Amino acid sequence: MNSLEKFFEPESIAVVGASRDSTKLGHMVLKNIIQGGYKGFVYPVNPKSEEVMGLQSYPDVEQIPYDVDLAIIIIPARFVVPVVKQCANKGIKGAIIISAGFGEVSEEGKTWESQIREIARVSGLRVLGPNCLGFINPKIKLNASFGKNLPKVGNVGFLSQSGAFGTAMLDWAEESEVGFNLFVSIGNKVDISENDILEYWAETKIPKVIVSYLEDIKDGRRFDKLNSQITLKSPHLILKPGRTEAAQEAIKSHTGALAGSDLVVSTALKQFGCLRADGMHDLFDMVRAFSLQPKLKGNRIAVVTNAGGPAVMTTDFIEMNGLRVARFDSRTSEILRDKLPRTANIQDPVDVIGDALADRYAAAIDATLGDPNVDALIVLLTPQVMTQINETADYIGRLAKVHGKTVMAAFVGGKFVESGRNRLEELGVPVYHYPDRAALALKAMNEYRLYVSKEKAKQTIGATDGIGHVDVTKRLNVESIISAARSEGRNVLTPSEGLQIAEIYNITVPKSRIVVNEEDAVSTAEEIGFPVVMKISSEKFLHKTELKGVELNLDSPKKIIDAYQMLRSRLAHELGISTDQVEGDIEVQQQIVGGHEVMIGVKKDESFGHLLLFGMGGIYTEIYKDFATRLAPLSMEDANEMIHDTKVFEILTGFRNLPVRDVACIAERLISISRLVTDFPMINELDVNPLIVLDKGSGCVAVDVKITINSI
Amino acid sequence: MNSLEKFFEPESIAVVGASRDSTKLGHMVLKNIIQGGYKGFVYPVNPKSEEVMGLQSYPDVEQIPYDVDLAIIIIPARFVVPVVKQCANKGIKGAIIISAGFGEVSEEGKTWESQIREIARVSGLRVLGPNCLGFINPKIKLNASFGKNLPKVGNVGFLSQSGAFGTAMLDWAEESEVGFNLFVSIGNKVDISENDILEYWAETKIPKVIVSYLEDIKDGRRFDKLNSQITLKSPHLILKPGRTEAAQEAIKSHTGALAGSDLVVSTALKQFGCLRADGMHDLFDMVRAFSLQPKLKGNRIAVVTNAGGPAVMTTDFIEMNGLRVARFDSRTSEILRDKLPRTANIQDPVDVIGDALADRYAAAIDATLGDPNVDALIVLLTPQVMTQINETADYIGRLAKVHGKTVMAAFVGGKFVESGRNRLEELGVPVYHYPDRAALALKAMNEYRLYVSKEKAKQTIGATDGIGHVDVTKRLNVESIISAARSEGRNVLTPSEGLQIAEIYNITVPKSRIVVNEEDAVSTAEEIGFPVVMKISSEKFLHKTELKGVELNLDSPKKIIDAYQMLRSRLAHELGISTDQVEGDIEVQQQIVGGHEVMIGVKKDESFGHLLLFGMGGIYTEIYKDFATRLAPLSMEDANEMIHDTKVFEILTGFRNLPVRDVACIAERLISISRLVTDFPMINELDVNPLIVLDKGSGCVAVDVKITINSI
Repeated sequence: MNSLEKFFEPESIAVVGASRDSTKLGHMVLKNIIQGGYKGFVYPVNPKSEEVMGLQSYPDVEQIPYDVDLAIIIIPARFVVPVVKQCANKGIKGAIIISAGFGEVSEEGKTWESQIREIARVSGLRVLGPNCLGFINPKIKLNASFGKNLPKVGNVGFLSQSGAFGTAMLDWAEESEVGFNLFVSIGNKVDISENDILEYWAETKIPKVIVSYLEDIKDGRRFDKLNSQITLKSPHLILKPGRTEAAQEAIKSHTGALAGSDLVVSTALKQFGCLRADGMHDLFDMVRAFSLQPKLKGNRIAVVTNAGGPAVMTTDFIEMNGLRVARFDSRTSEILRDKLPRTANIQDPVDVIGDALADRYAAAIDATLGDPNVDALIVLLTPQVMTQINETADYIGRLAKVHGKTVMAAFVGGKFVESGRNRLEELGVPVYHYPDRAALALKAMNEYRLYVSKEKAKQTIGATDGIGHVDVTKRLNVESIISAARSEGRNVLTPSEGLQIAEIYNITVPKSRIVVNEEDAVSTAEEIGFPVVMKISSEKFLHKTELKGVELNLDSPKKIIDAYQMLRSRLAHELGISTDQVEGDIEVQQQIVGGHEVMIGVKKDESFGHLLLFGMGGIYTEIYKDFATRLAPLSMEDANEMIHDTKVFEILTGFRNLPVRDVACIAERLISISRLVTDFPMINELDVNPLIVLDKGSGCVAVDVKITINSI
Repeated sequence: MNSLEKFFEPESIAVVGASRDSTKLGHMVLKNIIQGGYKGFVYPVNPKSEEVMGLQSYPDVEQIPYDVDLAIIIIPARFVVPVVKQCANKGIKGAIIISAGFGEVSEEGKTWESQIREIARVSGLRVLGPNCLGFINPKIKLNASFGKNLPKVGNVGFLSQSGAFGTAMLDWAEESEVGFNLFVSIGNKVDISENDILEYWAETKIPKVIVSYLEDIKDGRRFDKLNSQITLKSPHLILKPGRTEAAQEAIKSHTGALAGSDLVVSTALKQFGCLRADGMHDLFDMVRAFSLQPKLKGNRIAVVTNAGGPAVMTTDFIEMNGLRVARFDSRTSEILRDKLPRTANIQDPVDVIGDALADRYAAAIDATLGDPNVDALIVLLTPQVMTQINETADYIGRLAKVHGKTVMAAFVGGKFVESGRNRLEELGVPVYHYPDRAALALKAMNEYRLYVSKEKAKQTIGATDGIGHVDVTKRLNVESIISAARSEGRNVLTPSEGLQIAEIYNITVPKSRIVVNEEDAVSTAEEIGFPVVMKISSEKFLHKTELKGVELNLDSPKKIIDAYQMLRSRLAHELGISTDQVEGDIEVQQQIVGGHEVMIGVKKDESFGHLLLFGMGGIYTEIYKDFATRLAPLSMEDANEMIHDTKVFEILTGFRNLPVRDVACIAERLISISRLVTDFPMINELDVNPLIVLDKGSGCVAVDVKITINSI
């Protein structure tokens, strides 16, 4: 049983601050509870009145002689802490603090929040808010908020960190057919967070659609885990501002929250199937479609219209948003040819022509929805002189139900079509003022469809447990390298340590050996194979100058002897010793010939964990922004998807005359790196740059591996 | 005087097909004219009645005993041609053909259209339509259409190729405060086209805002010229579908028009200052702002809100769309600190807090609009318990007028704020349901602002007449090369002809000479400077194999002699002759060392002329889509802008450790190529690929120039 079940379905409620003064929030909340038709017990708490709105009132919660499941607190902030304490004393398990004036305005308020958090922790009291609207559970007719009306019962689960956004949602819903499973305003999140609400849904019943507005996500890893359970069943539409620095500043001054890196947030949302809306308008148009219609089964969209221009525009929207204009079955074409006038267009978009009455619309809608090559339908209607607006709306609604496919409509034309719009929504068909909005909603539905089918494929194609796994003795070797660095006070590992760790995790690195003299250098090179690279590997020389310490393209014994002498004298000069004293500080390394350079990077985020980045590096990543990110741990599908998400993929797979490279090897390396950072959470940053990808079947080689660990 | 002045302001109108039957379009059009309050003479034409709607009727136009300025024809398509003939006979100068059933449905219809076009051409009769709604000129209360209502007089000039889109615009306008200067439905464009309407405006008075819906643009060059006149004074907002192939197909079946390449269209729209909307919804939201508000003067946006969440989202929209959150003057901060409560946010976005009454809003609005660092303001309002919605609306409207800056509002919250929304629009402040829509409108206004300021800068900075100009004798040399190729039946010029032409147009090409023997080759190379390239220049060998005919990196006399022998024997072998017979078919060319490769391409479009493309070529152009396009002729500013519009620019100007290249030289080459194709319109395609850009100050070299000409 989830700990919030009783919270959202209380059998008795105390309203602390219930007031007889109708201008007070405490009055409005009590009125909302009573007028909404809530069937449980309600106890006003007000030391100044014996009765409020016809109910006996109590001076404080502890003096209520009955059990109380939920306390709603609407009193000035400075008085809240003692009341919370009283609730805990009485053994109440849930409280909503509607009052504002806490952490969002002052340091004092932050102190109160900590005190409340502590009381909650010790007593097991769950607290929603402060600085929130409360919640609404229409199923039990409970409006435990100061929102004006009890919304319809429906299938949308809603949670918002902004009260104003919550109110906007309620206002909008009132004008549509969308209803709520639960509406929760989480405010300052002193105890109950977005994750607690998601968990409540995951552990009880997931609503058909989840909608959230979040300014910060406190525990990213838990958020991800919960979403990965939820989004396979239901879409989670989210509005998450903070994409720009200016908005992050505004968030800070609004709720005191730190929004975190938007790259990490957007990666998480995408990876765990949340659909991010660009704004309130987009969000509401999407909610309508997801709430009212069955899920989209494919991307082939039919359009039935009585006007050419809007249909042409719709075609652009469809094709530009990952959807496809349907190609009808021959039987459908026959029916359309038969039922529509000669001048009608019987290809998709189907134009039933301006003089179409409702029955002609019905024939076209029935034919297209009956076509096995059609997954969804947009019906466009513009009011012509003879158009039967309401009758057409009726046919659309009824035929949508008969065929069970996703249907939406755009009735273009102000007040002339208003009644038709209302009729359609009553019949459960989302209707928009303009076709672009319908296409936008379908686009979101299609993105959700693709996510789910991809995730399901993952689960059936194969478990990834084995891939990249490294056994315990090897892991202990990595542990030793990291511990050694820490004991030396270093949090940046040396290149050689980086390569060692990579090798332990099955990442191919160039063959390499420290040599002690010229002969050793030559024989090592012959063993490794020409050409080789030689470099000064002394740590003292490190970072002094990258270029002078490395000699490339050494393809003969003579060049190797020359390079050895040159490097040795440079090192001696640099360290102020004689060349005889130099020993064991020069390295011969395999030079990787050919191949294509890519890079893999990792950065750890405090909330969401390790973020992996794959790209080509250099201008491709920095100027062309061509890279893909995912949060660890990765499955093989994730890794492949990352590679496919970049344009690098095209370049690596034989664009024009370019050779086809070993893309599979990159995916394996991504998995191994994901493993590594998951096994060693103290890794803060890791860069494999370059990873040279050889021709298909020949593997890939990590030439340079930089690892930074946290200091602890 | 523009030939359409009388057309749109007729003193007398004949309505051919005026009917007593109220279900007929002919009846509706006549009724619209009469009921609209048109003050001129109206003559119904109907052979079956002597009187229609109280007006004397005539059997045909020729029997009207008075002068007629405009005939409106609403009779079945098959009867239209004779009526048009009669109009011409009577000396009528304008006709609207509202009837449908022409080129859009049949071949026969197309024939009728040609016949009408011919009558118009010969007689000077101007014809609007067929298959259109007609036009509405609210200033003279003339509704010469079957649109239901006479819209308000206003500042929007509207033209549409789609009747349904026109109707949608009228319906939308009826619900807003936007009015029309002129509303024209152009239908099948048998005579009067989009360009004629634009020219009419350009030659009489340009409306404050021009809005158009176009499926094809017939004469792109004229369209561009007209827009270049119009858009400096007024924005031209356009909806132009056909971005996808599927939509181009749909356009073909809708109006029979060919939409043309969207790359060319989008280049033209951008270059000549048209603002392209993504859909009807976006368009209407943009129209509202441009029509009601003063032009935007800068991109610094203030936000005043009574709720944090929506303000945070707005901040994201602002910053993501090229706008900036304002930084207030210290005086403004003082005022805000003084007037707002302690918990308010006095930085932009200014949060007046949920309990703000109208006067607090007013204080914040007045302070921010008075700030010299603020160019525009978005006021956000969410209905809280105490919010004074209408009073706040009043203040916004009045303060917007006082300060004269661009102001818009988003009143979030269904029917609760409806009255405030209406009040605001009456006061001329565009108001949206969601803040994202206000930001979208501001984004468009800012794009327009940038275009105008850039264009104005062009006119003052300097004329471009001289740049790239090539004198007549040189031009005649190019003429000769092209004529020679044509006379040989070639429409692809040889590489050497391409380089010659380039050189005539002041485009640096590698130094090069045909050599006759080994000694000549060596001395030529010494003169040009090592290294050189040698290649077989015989036309017979051309295209056989690119690689075998070229030897690179020749940096010594020995290598040159070897290369000469090799190439000579290859050629001899290929042609089946002895090596002695080879003479004058081998070329020594300067090899350009270093530099960065870019490309310039040209392709001619039938409607819009020569499209120039600049980019880095290869994967950068094809995979990363990093290129810029403009239509010839280019100004120096255009050329510089093209280069700046690409990411190549960053790469060429010292990204990381990359050398800074001679970007100015690329601009000069773009100008020269623009000149060349403008001087020689028979050039269909031209590719300079690669153009090697050397370090800053060292110029750039066109290594390969391919030119294709049309065959006459």
